[in-house]
Amino acid sequence: MKNYRLVLSYDGSDFRGWQRQPEARTVQAVLEEAVRKVTGRRTTVHGAGRTDAGVHALAQVASFRARTRLDDATLARALNANLPPDVRIFSLSRAPEDFHAQKSARAKVYQYRIVNAPEISPFLRKYALHWPHRLNLRAMREAAALFRRRADFSAFSSNRDRSPVRTVTRSELRKNGALITYTVEAEGFLRYMVRTMAGTLLEVGRGRLEPQAVEEIFRLKDRSLAGPTAPARGLFLVEVIY
Amino acid sequence: MKNYRLVLSYDGSDFRGWQRQPEARTVQAVLEEAVRKVTGRRTTVHGAGRTDAGVHALAQVASFRARTRLDDATLARALNANLPPDVRIFSLSRAPEDFHAQKSARAKVYQYRIVNAPEISPFLRKYALHWPHRLNLRAMREAAALFRRRADFSAFSSNRDRSPVRTVTRSELRKNGALITYTVEAEGFLRYMVRTMAGTLLEVGRGRLEPQAVEEIFRLKDRSLAGPTAPARGLFLVEVIY
Repeated sequence: MKNYRLVLSYDGSDFRGWQRQPEARTVQAVLEEAVRKVTGRRTTVHGAGRTDAGVHALAQVASFRARTRLDDATLARALNANLPPDVRIFSLSRAPEDFHAQKSARAKVYQYRIVNAPEISPFLRKYALHWPHRLNLRAMREAAALFRRRADFSAFSSNRDRSPVRTVTRSELRKNGALITYTVEAEGFLRYMVRTMAGTLLEVGRGRLEPQAVEEIFRLKDRSLAGPTAPARGLFLVEVIY
Repeated sequence: MKNYRLVLSYDGSDFRGWQRQPEARTVQAVLEEAVRKVTGRRTTVHGAGRTDAGVHALAQVASFRARTRLDDATLARALNANLPPDVRIFSLSRAPEDFHAQKSARAKVYQYRIVNAPEISPFLRKYALHWPHRLNLRAMREAAALFRRRADFSAFSSNRDRSPVRTVTRSELRKNGALITYTVEAEGFLRYMVRTMAGTLLEVGRGRLEPQAVEEIFRLKDRSLAGPTAPARGLFLVEVIY
């Protein structure tokens, strides 16, 4: 039995997220189906980040165990040949016996993209949130910096988690023309956490919340004080760090 | 009656090209429908380049005449509100009485995009041709330079045209990582001309044609000697020059 590590990219638009679910088109399901077709056996494919419906990945990492005589390059080609074009494996390699894409991950990096212009390009409409109104970038940057901490992030998640403490080590905003990119790195994330942080930054950018409100929300741990969950189409899993 | 000039972008994937046709979803048809809804009257919207089915536009230029009391910014917003998200107007302005998007155009610039890597990103699959095999860039560049001329381009078109002489003023290949971009500028193009030139460059890149074969094809004016018509998804109308 060999242990494999994959780096893959997917356009989340037509997926019900990463995780296998009955009757749903998910990334895990199409990967497991490809592995089954190529190796002849069912296996679980573990993903580093269980991205939600509509969320994209530039470099998701996954792992699985299989018995096959195919060399790595041939196996990668065979898997891609059995995958739909909205999922592509860019690298496949043998991993140490104890490697597990999710459990071994030290940190993950997500980006949330916003196009701040009167109109959004047809080529970006599925890959960014369109925000046509004025945004106060300075206030948003100030608020973004306040997310860099070890804390209970319950107020920035839509699910109750028994251990809601997370450590955000990077939280920064860049602007390049009309494209605003919000980058967050953490060892782990709560459900909808990045999208709720992005939604809160938008409230700050619009002037509906002061940057310092972020402190207050952390203190009160009240989801209703944070911004709405920003749409999935703007979110990308961009890197997994081991 | 005012004369308007539009600059617009569209994702050609789900269009049967620019030109209005019965029962088909075309860019001209959705634009004319938007103008009719906003102004209450049917008008013809003229496009600078009549792009084929599946071809994209970063900056198509169009013109139309209309009687409306809306100011330009309001008219642009109203048209966009009545357009599907795969077409966006980025600028609308009043044009001189005699301006006609197609007839007034001095030149058009097209780009053909090729991803030369083992796999193509899910985010580029509708916006480039995927070529996983080795390509001889030097030979392709040499061949591309031979397209810069005033000549009968019949051999690089799939339709017979009574006046097949065109002047190509720019024809060059750039490579940026795995992305090869072929840029062509001409005062006008024959049908499928850029895609046939791109298909011919691919034949040169694969070693099936020598760069100098381009000279021979011009001399013999024989379509069957040129390469196949490259797929529409790699082609973008990028600029119209007035």
